[in-house]
Amino acid sequence: MDTLTNHVTIRNYRNEPLSEELIMQLLHAGIRASTTGNMQWYSIIITTETSIKRELELLHFNQAAAVTAPVILTFCADINRFGKWCTLNKAIPGYDNFMSFLNASIDALLVAQNFCIAAENSGLGICYLGTVTYNASEIIQLLKLPELVMPVASVAVGWPDISPLPADRLPLKAVVHRNVYKNYGDDEIMEYYHLKEQQESSVQYVRENKKETLAQVFTDIRYKKEDNEKYSDRFISTLRDQGFNV
Amino acid sequence: MDTLTNHVTIRNYRNEPLSEELIMQLLHAGIRASTTGNMQWYSIIITTETSIKRELELLHFNQAAAVTAPVILTFCADINRFGKWCTLNKAIPGYDNFMSFLNASIDALLVAQNFCIAAENSGLGICYLGTVTYNASEIIQLLKLPELVMPVASVAVGWPDISPLPADRLPLKAVVHRNVYKNYGDDEIMEYYHLKEQQESSVQYVRENKKETLAQVFTDIRYKKEDNEKYSDRFISTLRDQGFNV
Repeated sequence: MDTLTNHVTIRNYRNEPLSEELIMQLLHAGIRASTTGNMQWYSIIITTETSIKRELELLHFNQAAAVTAPVILTFCADINRFGKWCTLNKAIPGYDNFMSFLNASIDALLVAQNFCIAAENSGLGICYLGTVTYNASEIIQLLKLPELVMPVASVAVGWPDISPLPADRLPLKAVVHRNVYKNYGDDEIMEYYHLKEQQESSVQYVRENKKETLAQVFTDIRYKKEDNEKYSDRFISTLRDQGFNV
Repeated sequence: MDTLTNHVTIRNYRNEPLSEELIMQLLHAGIRASTTGNMQWYSIIITTETSIKRELELLHFNQAAAVTAPVILTFCADINRFGKWCTLNKAIPGYDNFMSFLNASIDALLVAQNFCIAAENSGLGICYLGTVTYNASEIIQLLKLPELVMPVASVAVGWPDISPLPADRLPLKAVVHRNVYKNYGDDEIMEYYHLKEQQESSVQYVRENKKETLAQVFTDIRYKKEDNEKYSDRFISTLRDQGFNV
């Protein structure tokens, strides 16, 4: 329980390798996660080899977590392996559709989170690299992912170099609804986001970016409409390239 | 670590309520999970009220886990709350697109898995209800989910009535690749799925369904192409109804 509540994202790692044995031990716990119909529609690529890792770092925009971590794990929705098994067994797989991609992604993400918790429980630090969905096409090429395999989560992992304080979270009542969804009034929104807006880091973001509000830092700089739309189009087109009928 | 490796899906629960206090304590750990840009694009609906829960059970095809659990949690990708905050703060949200839905879904799934691990660590049992993506539209109506909110994971939770044995998993080497993806030869596929095919439950599935192979039980009965395609169309159309440009 402490492992869960003490989670912090680690963006800098000590220059120390991670043993293959430890990674496999953590993944052994990882793959116990729930999976649709026990079909395990996922694959995990462990990248440590210097030349490939350098290229992968670049595709993750050279963010510190990717560069300083000894290992990057790429969790993929994978219907290729299951489909091969079907074909070898006189069965015709019908999994090249959006629902199967979604189920495979859920499978992959539950394994990823299980792995992260196991890693943190062993004193390691982790960082999810959101860039995986932006550059899915290039990552597919680099990691040689065949048709019906899509990367959905990348995790940098290593021994923490620094121990940052936990990030702020909205009060629990802001994200929980009883029985049915109760939509938010303006006053509630103002109350729930107040703490986040008051954080020293938030105030600094607003000032540095010469914005009026913290929300504008998100909409105008960090997660812009035009970028989201560009990456949406790219991701859907990559899904099609990988053989999914979407 | 034992909590992770001992995971079993629980499909029958004792007729005992779960305290609100315990649920909130588990969710407190849940929301420490990593989240894109610390935006927390998710909401969690806790359904315990008898009349609403009965309707929800029906939408989960009255499976035993849904019916016997005292509580069903519906984890939703939620951009409604963040969008309202933006609008109240002179910022124009650009999050009604596929990439934002994907990021929000990832956020919601990591919280769901954190919650499940916290629950299992407290002696509770859980079961993911895959039906959530099949009947998303009806679940949206029942739980009154507004635009830009989509259910992506449902979890039944309660005190286990029985303790089943852990389900089989493929050998770890079957799902792990080093540095890049190494595609599977026929012999490897045969080797990796051999144990699953030999399980007593698998042999029984094949016999009961009068099939030739276990793979046919998946493709012809449990996860059929026509169902997957029907549910894909429904999910994408529901995404559009909820205001996502996909």
